Order: sequence, then C-alpha cells, then structure tokens
Amino acid sequence: MKVTVVRNILDANDRIAAENRLLFDEKGVYVINVMSSPGAGKTSLVEKTITALKDRWRIAVIEGDIQNTYDADRVAALGVCAVQINTGGACHIDGNMVREALPALDLDRVDLLITENVGNLVCPAEFKIGENAKVMILSTPEGADKPAKYPLMFQESSVMVINKIDLLPYVDFDLAKARRDALAVNPGLEIFEVSCKTGQGLEGWIGWLAGRVEAFRNR
Amino acid sequence: MKVTVVRNILDANDRIAAENRLLFDEKGVYVINVMSSPGAGKTSLVEKTITALKDRWRIAVIEGDIQNTYDADRVAALGVCAVQINTGGACHIDGNMVREALPALDLDRVDLLITENVGNLVCPAEFKIGENAKVMILSTPEGADKPAKYPLMFQESSVMVINKIDLLPYVDFDLAKARRDALAVNPGLEIFEVSCKTGQGLEGWIGWLAGRVEAFRNR
Repeated sequence: MKVTVVRNILDANDRIAAENRLLFDEKGVYVINVMSSPGAGKTSLVEKTITALKDRWRIAVIEGDIQNTYDADRVAALGVCAVQINTGGACHIDGNMVREALPALDLDRVDLLITENVGNLVCPAEFKIGENAKVMILSTPEGADKPAKYPLMFQESSVMVINKIDLLPYVDFDLAKARRDALAVNPGLEIFEVSCKTGQGLEGWIGWLAGRVEAFRNR
Repeated sequence: MKVTVVRNILDANDRIAAENRLLFDEKGVYVINVMSSPGAGKTSLVEKTITALKDRWRIAVIEGDIQNTYDADRVAALGVCAVQINTGGACHIDGNMVREALPALDLDRVDLLITENVGNLVCPAEFKIGENAKVMILSTPEGADKPAKYPLMFQESSVMVINKIDLLPYVDFDLAKARRDALAVNPGLEIFEVSCKTGQGLEGWIGWLAGRVEAFRNR
C-alpha cells in the first residue's frame, strides 16, 4: 500500500517534470539540478559556475531550501536572478515546486537555469524537475563509501563533482575507491575533482557544462 | 491531499513507536537514535561508544542503511550483536522497521540499544522509533549554517555532537555560530565537541550517555 502511494506521487511528478521540460525546450533554457548531502558545497559550486559563465550566458538560479533565503541571498549577490523555493519541511524539490517558481523568472532571457536542491543524498534523486542533467557533489570528508551506500543518487546523475580535494591530506578518503564504486553503479558518469575553496580543478567542470549548454543551443 | 497522506503515515508511525517504547521499558533497554548527514561520523561515534561502554553494559546495535551491510560489519567486529535494516530506498528508518528487526535481538540481554539511522539531515527527524533520546551529529566540514537550514533535526534531538573538530584549522566552521543557532531552535540541547578520529572530547559524550543509561536503570 505504501509503495503504491509513493509510486503515484512519482508518476504525477514525472508528468509535471515533462511539462517543465517542454517549456524549457521551447524557451531554449538548459537546466541542471545540483544535489548533494548538506554542506558538500552546492552553493559554492553554483557561485563558482556563475562567476565563470555569467558573461557568456544569461544565468538564473532556483534555490531549494526547507526554510530561509541564505543561499538565494549568496547567489543574488553575484548579480544573477535568484528565486527561493522554501519546501516547508520537504526533503527535496519536485517538478511542481519548480513549475510554481517559474513565473518569477523571465525564461525568454535565461540561457542556463541552475537549480540547487535541498541538501540530501537520498530523496532528491527520485524527483525529476525537468532538468537536462543531474549533477551531484560528493565531498571528501563524507567518505568514499557513499556510492555503494546511496547508489540511486550516483545512478541518476550525469556528473559527480568530488569537492573539497584541498582536505585530502586531512581526511581518510580513498579517491580511487570513490571513482570505482561510482562508475560501478553508473559507467557513464562524468567525474571531476575540484576544490571550490582553492579553485583547483574547476576548469574541467566548467568546460563540461559549457560544452553541454553549447550543444543544447545548437540542437 | 498530500499533507493528509504524510500526516497519516506519521500518526501510524507514532503508534508503532509507542508500542516499541513499551516493550523497551518492560525489558529495561535504553535506546538512542543516532542521526546525521551522510559521512558526518555516525558509525565512528557508534564504534567509540561501544568500545567505551561494552564492559559496563550489554550493547546491541541496529544499523539502518538503504542497502548493504558495511556498517553492521564494522560494528559486529567489536563483538556486539548488530542487526542490519535495509530500507530498500527509503531515506530513514521508522518504528515499523525497528519493530521488525527486534526478533533478531534477545532484548532480555540488552541494556543499551544503539540505532544508527540512514544518513540524512531531514527525514529521520520526523520518524520516532521508540527511542529514549535522539542524538544528532554535525560535522565541521558541513558548515555552521545547518541548524538554521535544517531546524527540525536540531529541535527533535536531545544531543548535538559536533564531530571532526580535528579539521577546524582546515575548514570554515564557526563553532560559536553553530552552538548559538542550534540552541536558538532547541535551548535544551546538550552539545559536545569531539573528534572520533583523535578521540578528543569523547569523554563528555560518553559521560552524558552513561548518566542517562544509569538514571533509566534506576527509574
């Protein structure tokens, strides 16, 4: 019975996400859905990505948080349009929350929409929002056992950004194991090793994203 | 409609958790529910707690994971009885999952039951399991903004263990802000600063837990 309820919710969400996707295609908006555990560096990666690409494309951000506007405030300070979704307790954002946020954006003037999910390595992976790509962040202090313990997130994502590599000397993180176990659940996963704090490795991630946006615009 | 569904699930869970609690009281078992983001150090804290207290009381562990038995294997290596719950995708353990795990334990021979939840700073806070106390871990690399962003977890918990204080020189973590914001949502919160890696500060946490188990046994 419980499974049935969940299935119905997911089916309804998939339909709304598909409608969002049609709208994004019509407006020419490339959308990424950024997900991770709390504190792995989602907002930091979003900030670095905006700084690197805001002169090339028009960027907007949807920030998903249980409450408050801390992350939207951080991102808006970079001069891009930021909309805050407060989920009011829900542990993820879904297609309908994104749909309801869209009237606050002028999609005719957006090339790249970055959506930052609630910090959670489990539930967000189940809910499509109409994105072109799911991007997940694993930070080194979390440990290399996460792909094996939370496989759906790694399976659903196009990209794994391994963040906080500046902390590698101080934490027990087996980089080779993290890569191997993530690729075991998703052989097509793109992997980038970065430090949002020092800037190390970010060019790989930025290059990948720029290539995807470019290909989408030339589709 | 959606809110109603969630409410019914939580009500049903509360009933089962209360039944678990009655059984634990009858058998004289003190129960803690250990929660945190993925990789904050739940299993490490459980290991240190077992090592410190296993000669004083009979300890059993229930490990909650989406899949696999890595954590139960780590804990069983310390010579205590460990039962693994695989939630099969669910982002938390609930009262019914714990109830179904109990036949694997001889509760007449258990004084302290440590339950380790799925790594998630959101959903586990909503689901009682019949515990005496919820214990949450915040690790320094996650950042000090977490109490304000995920308040329910801090509200519901009796204890906040701030783990990975050995990383303080390398991460931007405002200890005073984390304490202040956590106490703002829960003024009764007990706070301990520890490093499960170096052992620093663990005596405060162990002393608190030992005092609670003692008081429960003398009730």
